[in-house]
Amino acid sequence: MGDTMKYPKGITPSVKDTINYGNRGMDFESEINQTNQYYLENNIAVIHKKPTSITIAHVDYKSRREAIIKEAYFKTPSTTDYNGVFQGRYIDFEAKETNSLTSFPLSNIHLHQLNHLKQIINHGGIGFLLVRFRKRNETYYVDGHDLFSYLSHCERKSLPIAFFQKYGFLIADKWEPRVDYLEIVTHIYIKGELYGKEN
Amino acid sequence: MGDTMKYPKGITPSVKDTINYGNRGMDFESEINQTNQYYLENNIAVIHKKPTSITIAHVDYKSRREAIIKEAYFKTPSTTDYNGVFQGRYIDFEAKETNSLTSFPLSNIHLHQLNHLKQIINHGGIGFLLVRFRKRNETYYVDGHDLFSYLSHCERKSLPIAFFQKYGFLIADKWEPRVDYLEIVTHIYIKGELYGKEN
Repeated sequence: MGDTMKYPKGITPSVKDTINYGNRGMDFESEINQTNQYYLENNIAVIHKKPTSITIAHVDYKSRREAIIKEAYFKTPSTTDYNGVFQGRYIDFEAKETNSLTSFPLSNIHLHQLNHLKQIINHGGIGFLLVRFRKRNETYYVDGHDLFSYLSHCERKSLPIAFFQKYGFLIADKWEPRVDYLEIVTHIYIKGELYGKEN
Repeated sequence: MGDTMKYPKGITPSVKDTINYGNRGMDFESEINQTNQYYLENNIAVIHKKPTSITIAHVDYKSRREAIIKEAYFKTPSTTDYNGVFQGRYIDFEAKETNSLTSFPLSNIHLHQLNHLKQIINHGGIGFLLVRFRKRNETYYVDGHDLFSYLSHCERKSLPIAFFQKYGFLIADKWEPRVDYLEIVTHIYIKGELYGKEN
């Protein structure tokens, strides 16, 4: 338990004080970007987030060097957000978080993105999802093979937590790198260990 | 020669009429996008152009579904424009064109992008440049290994045409796919043929 903090009368601990230190208050995207930065700086892998997909409608060219986009629209992405290279292998994934305690709604991922992941796997790439259950403080790696094998059996609108517990890999909570998904990739693909939990 | 078109007095053929049919009037980026589309539809590879890097400063949320970006700026890209997967291998390249007949100015490529390509190669990815000499109607594949080996010998501000002729691979002019760079990648990496022209 340790010492309990004494607060002056009328002052209650803010959200910051009661934060779950597993998360350290950083959003999932920032944690993944930080992880990728760690991989890059430590010469482990080159993985980047793609820029946001937009359609530019109007640009104001003030000068040759200075251009301001005055009208643009967000576009449904046709691929996942992250890709890159790790030990010569092509890496491709999407990262999402949910507030649900019991399931991950597949509506969080565009159909285009799921189809893209499937194509990646068919071409020998390593494709997966990273899903954070915020309220459970758990982050799962779900390999594309397991995802599509599951979805082929039953047309689901969401992935229940039991699916993650059975087929997913819980990503260990570390300080650095924050979301060490390549540890799982190494386990599954690089070390040549038996694929899947059940084998 | 064929029939010559007769134009009414005062009307001269537009650029479109005098076009070089090797190019068919399409710009290089469109030709590469078309090539990637061909690879995708024919189940050869999954390679996409990344969205333009921008910094969004102001978004007008008219409604939950409709958002208009009202102010955004172009950002120097930290990676190359194209990447994807081909037979399990990671593919990464930048494509540029030049009007010069004699050399390709390296100022056309950001230093960030060159460093990115170097990192890709160090991690076992396949990295290269595609350079179109518009006025020569020639498109070259330059493998990253050759590029950086050349640049390590001499700090150059441009790559002379002789470099392309010696170390590059001329991409055959085809109808479909238009810029068949994977033919060269297959030649160098997949078939395991001797690397480089001179070996």
